[in-house]
Amino acid sequence: MYFSSDNSGPVHPEVMEMLATANTGYALPYGADPLMDEVRDRLRQIFEAPQAEIYLVATGTAANALALATLTQPWQTVFCSPVAHIHEDECNAPEFFTGGAKLTLVPGDDKMTPDALRQSIIGEENRGVHGPQRGPVSITQVTERGSIYTLDELSSLTAVAKEFDLPVHLDGARFANALARLNCSPAEMSWKIGVDTLCFGGTKNGLMGVEAVILFNPDNAWEFELRRKRAAHLFSKHRYLSAQMVGYLRNDLWLRSARQANANCKRLVDGLESAGVQLLNSPDANMIYVALTRAVHQRLIEAGATFNADDPAPASNNPDDLLTVRLVCDWSMTDALIDQFLGYL
Amino acid sequence: MYFSSDNSGPVHPEVMEMLATANTGYALPYGADPLMDEVRDRLRQIFEAPQAEIYLVATGTAANALALATLTQPWQTVFCSPVAHIHEDECNAPEFFTGGAKLTLVPGDDKMTPDALRQSIIGEENRGVHGPQRGPVSITQVTERGSIYTLDELSSLTAVAKEFDLPVHLDGARFANALARLNCSPAEMSWKIGVDTLCFGGTKNGLMGVEAVILFNPDNAWEFELRRKRAAHLFSKHRYLSAQMVGYLRNDLWLRSARQANANCKRLVDGLESAGVQLLNSPDANMIYVALTRAVHQRLIEAGATFNADDPAPASNNPDDLLTVRLVCDWSMTDALIDQFLGYL
Amino acid sequence: MYFSSDNSGPVHPEVMEMLATANTGYALPYGADPLMDEVRDRLRQIFEAPQAEIYLVATGTAANALALATLTQPWQTVFCSPVAHIHEDECNAPEFFTGGAKLTLVPGDDKMTPDALRQSIIGEENRGVHGPQRGPVSITQVTERGSIYTLDELSSLTAVAKEFDLPVHLDGARFANALARLNCSPAEMSWKIGVDTLCFGGTKNGLMGVEAVILFNPDNAWEFELRRKRAAHLFSKHRYLSAQMVGYLRNDLWLRSARQANANCKRLVDGLESAGVQLLNSPDANMIYVALTRAVHQRLIEAGATFNADDPAPASNNPDDLLTVRLVCDWSMTDALIDQFLGYL
Amino acid sequence: MYFSSDNSGPVHPEVMEMLATANTGYALPYGADPLMDEVRDRLRQIFEAPQAEIYLVATGTAANALALATLTQPWQTVFCSPVAHIHEDECNAPEFFTGGAKLTLVPGDDKMTPDALRQSIIGEENRGVHGPQRGPVSITQVTERGSIYTLDELSSLTAVAKEFDLPVHLDGARFANALARLNCSPAEMSWKIGVDTLCFGGTKNGLMGVEAVILFNPDNAWEFELRRKRAAHLFSKHRYLSAQMVGYLRNDLWLRSARQANANCKRLVDGLESAGVQLLNSPDANMIYVALTRAVHQRLIEAGATFNADDPAPASNNPDDLLTVRLVCDWSMTDALIDQFLGYL
Repeated sequence: MYFSSDNSGPVHPEVMEMLATANTGYALPYGADPLMDEVRDRLRQIFEAPQAEIYLVATGTAANALALATLTQPWQTVFCSPVAHIHEDECNAPEFFTGGAKLTLVPGDDKMTPDALRQSIIGEENRGVHGPQRGPVSITQVTERGSIYTLDELSSLTAVAKEFDLPVHLDGARFANALARLNCSPAEMSWKIGVDTLCFGGTKNGLMGVEAVILFNPDNAWEFELRRKRAAHLFSKHRYLSAQMVGYLRNDLWLRSARQANANCKRLVDGLESAGVQLLNSPDANMIYVALTRAVHQRLIEAGATFNADDPAPASNNPDDLLTVRLVCDWSMTDALIDQFLGYL
Repeated sequence: MYFSSDNSGPVHPEVMEMLATANTGYALPYGADPLMDEVRDRLRQIFEAPQAEIYLVATGTAANALALATLTQPWQTVFCSPVAHIHEDECNAPEFFTGGAKLTLVPGDDKMTPDALRQSIIGEENRGVHGPQRGPVSITQVTERGSIYTLDELSSLTAVAKEFDLPVHLDGARFANALARLNCSPAEMSWKIGVDTLCFGGTKNGLMGVEAVILFNPDNAWEFELRRKRAAHLFSKHRYLSAQMVGYLRNDLWLRSARQANANCKRLVDGLESAGVQLLNSPDANMIYVALTRAVHQRLIEAGATFNADDPAPASNNPDDLLTVRLVCDWSMTDALIDQFLGYL
Repeated sequence: MYFSSDNSGPVHPEVMEMLATANTGYALPYGADPLMDEVRDRLRQIFEAPQAEIYLVATGTAANALALATLTQPWQTVFCSPVAHIHEDECNAPEFFTGGAKLTLVPGDDKMTPDALRQSIIGEENRGVHGPQRGPVSITQVTERGSIYTLDELSSLTAVAKEFDLPVHLDGARFANALARLNCSPAEMSWKIGVDTLCFGGTKNGLMGVEAVILFNPDNAWEFELRRKRAAHLFSKHRYLSAQMVGYLRNDLWLRSARQANANCKRLVDGLESAGVQLLNSPDANMIYVALTRAVHQRLIEAGATFNADDPAPASNNPDDLLTVRLVCDWSMTDALIDQFLGYL
Repeated sequence: MYFSSDNSGPVHPEVMEMLATANTGYALPYGADPLMDEVRDRLRQIFEAPQAEIYLVATGTAANALALATLTQPWQTVFCSPVAHIHEDECNAPEFFTGGAKLTLVPGDDKMTPDALRQSIIGEENRGVHGPQRGPVSITQVTERGSIYTLDELSSLTAVAKEFDLPVHLDGARFANALARLNCSPAEMSWKIGVDTLCFGGTKNGLMGVEAVILFNPDNAWEFELRRKRAAHLFSKHRYLSAQMVGYLRNDLWLRSARQANANCKRLVDGLESAGVQLLNSPDANMIYVALTRAVHQRLIEAGATFNADDPAPASNNPDDLLTVRLVCDWSMTDALIDQFLGYL
């Protein structure tokens, strides 16, 4: 009963199969493998973006940090949420890859609002060379709290960025989970509303370790390639990254996996609500925050369940204390496992 | 007939099997997986180094650049060969990861000599704060030209480093090929002669993409972990790196593969010599440089062979011109393929 | 009537005299000049810190950025006020010099409080390698808003830093103005309460462009020297920096100038209060924020006064609108000039 | 008798006078002072370059490192002489300011030759993303060994750069000494032959510490301003930099000083030759290398002369050993002092 994260589940069998298929004879290294051609073709078609340039890397942090570095000058600042992965969970990778740019935290605790974003941008007001210069806006879809921006919400954010002529980066580590939920096309959730660079996640959704960086504006493509190599993120045996992504895109595995993960979370949420558990956020995608009593928390741990919990009073023994618990579902969970978990409530 | 590099062959079946075995249920992310415990145990035993700290990354450039960054201050210079991978083939990754250190090229065209190294170190003489400060010595075993340092040669280089109190980095992308040839233990070819940090290659020898960085001096281990994360080289689904390395170490696959690659090169060299081809270096490991006439080169290309060639007069049509050709063998080549290639001479 | 900043007034005549005195014959370059010996002796005595290492640089940003860089690893975060000079006015210099460290903004709008600081430090909680690591605490005395921390306030902040074993940087661009006000010794306002590195300002207080960086803990002195050179802040004709600082320290010019600046501000504040102007902060040092009506603001501008103003409604013509105005006094202002300014209210 | 360097002499009295003149009342900070307007006007006129953008910094290393940083991407390499100041004497400042670019040392021991430069550029051949990318060519006039490139020599170097579309940086720390010698205009020795950015030295020629960076191509001017601020090289009391440069340019002080320094060196050289001393380089500017016996060297040291000497056998006592001695003259030396020195030969 592992609800800690969607970054630790198994690789999808269809992906393992593609890896096996790819494992014959020689293939040109460093992204010149024929499977990468298929990756490019498929993603350009899926995103209705024939001009887009597409690169694969093996970690989400690499995707974000390289994408941001091509959009940001070292004397600029990136506008993002205080709970953004790029701020909280990348050990200063964006600062490293950009050569020392700053992140400006737009006030808020989950979704960014257009007003807060605009105030933050204005706040980095005109001080000539003295202050940091305004840089890109970075948005996360699905958010780190499991929420999904509607298309309107996203568009209103990118509109603010465009108002100030700032580029837009979308951290889409769970892009598929959001798309599976919203009734829109990949293009509508990206370049059509002004996203310049998209990190299109795969690792949390059934791959072994592959993310695609999609540059809708290909002007910086060569720079991206040099940055990727310089950061040691260009793979010699690249075909094994390509193979994963091909397996992900063929037969819509990416959407099927995301739908399954969302559905698993829905089943979990329904059970939690039936059991009278208080939800702390809207269960949009595959992640839910709930309040559990210390007693229930203890019972689940003893039963072998794993998940992240925030205990406001660790020294207390009061069984009625409420803890904030994060539960994440991936595509591989079975109904039986979810029901077993619910049984301990 | 692919003799371009050992970085583009298939993954060894035993490694694929380990990946499949590892692909069940959940595993703790970021290197906390149980397979990583096995990796550490095995490598500590193989290297007779119980105190060593060991980390996995997915590319050779990452291994080198992170290893050097923990040994080098930004105001220092790294002593290396002019043909070192860290200088020629990493697009300034060492400079990036160290925060702007310099590389000092020790004169020579293949193996570094103790005298040349000492002269280079002395050359970065005492100019107080003005000049770059002396930093680590980086040695490559097998060299980029396919040569293998004897233990005595290695020891005399590390002795020069120690004379000046400088740490030693060993780029061992083909460590196994060297060890398979020299009659010594892994410890004798590393910490026993003064190597502080070893990049122990796997990718060129049957893995999909894994290199181990072995810190014989564990003082900088935590710094290495932070640098790895900050450089986006820490994998969430780390078990798939561990699994490759476990497959590599179990049943001595690393040595079996290297011996096979070396033997394949020996077969190739024997055939070349029988055909009267001029060898340009000593065929120590799995890589050979030869002089081929333009006519033979042309014939091989037309037959579908691929390899790197340096043509001193590209505009010439003289069929007797000699081209410098590099031929690399990996573990997966068959005798039949080698003989087929030789047949075109 | 220039009230814009204390960074634009003339050089004190006693300092000009020292420059002229120093301008004879040759002097050893790069800080080996005899005047630098006097600087070291005097500052060690003034600060009762015989072991301190002391370096001169020519700008306040250089002092701060170099001081922070020797206290901060690139994967750490510096705790500071949202209005700190290092955050707002140095165009990412701290990020550049530290190699990509982050600044964590401790909530507040002027003085930092121990509680807010502690919460911020705790907020960068234990996430292993994933989050930024805790780095130094940076405090500004006099604050950017013209306030002076009492010794007790300062001590309670440094105590929080020490609680978490974090080093303390004091941005003392206006250190003299604070000391002239508080009844304490330089040592009491620095190392005795736990300051590790002090930037001791001179430029805003009568010098042409010199700040001293005082390392009370000399362990990183050599690193500081290398960083200073690498950042191009080591002067060949260093004696002209030394001469300024000698002129500043001899006969207590630094304290006399600061007292004069504070007194000038006091005269200004008294006049403003008599005229019924609303003070927006406590006039502790040589800087005051006041609310002026648009009409008065206009009158002052027309009279040739210069100062920074924040106009909440630039498009408005309402003469009764209140603007926030910052007025800074330096040592060189005359009573007549201040009275002239007050006359326009 | 100080012949160690031209970086340690006094400030010219006309410059001290300008500093005193500038020291009245307030002046706008950060380069907005009216004296800076005069600097710009004069330099544009002197260089016949009305479109040039001009900035002042206080050290030669700052000028070079900032100039190079605006011309170089972090994944590129700068082509320069092995004895270039940017390589030998700046403690990795170019690597720091460029964010980790490399320097490629064009073989040679003083003046760079077009052939060697071309070979070096070709040597950084096309390896796609793997090798460093070709960056600017950096030339030093006067060279670090005291030689002066003729206009033809300079043009043939810049022609090679242009052949490969590479920008050209000229380190002109002793630009005036070269111009005073060659019969050409400032424009002819800079932009007319393809120099993109010139570091126009002042510190070694009578100033306290000011160098002008002249961007003949103003496209990167704003980037330069941001880089200067971020590197902490923008002065608040900028008027004192401007004043020095104004003093330098008015009445051709820069040329008068350089001519005097060259003439002083000529007098020294004549005396050395009369005494039968062996010259090791051509005495083009204000610096000469000679071979002196240990006995003479000893006699000079005892007489209080200071200069740099390279002793090939420090342990020897043989009075006939030849040492390589560098003698540098600045504008301030008197005939009497030079003759006194010669008297000890």
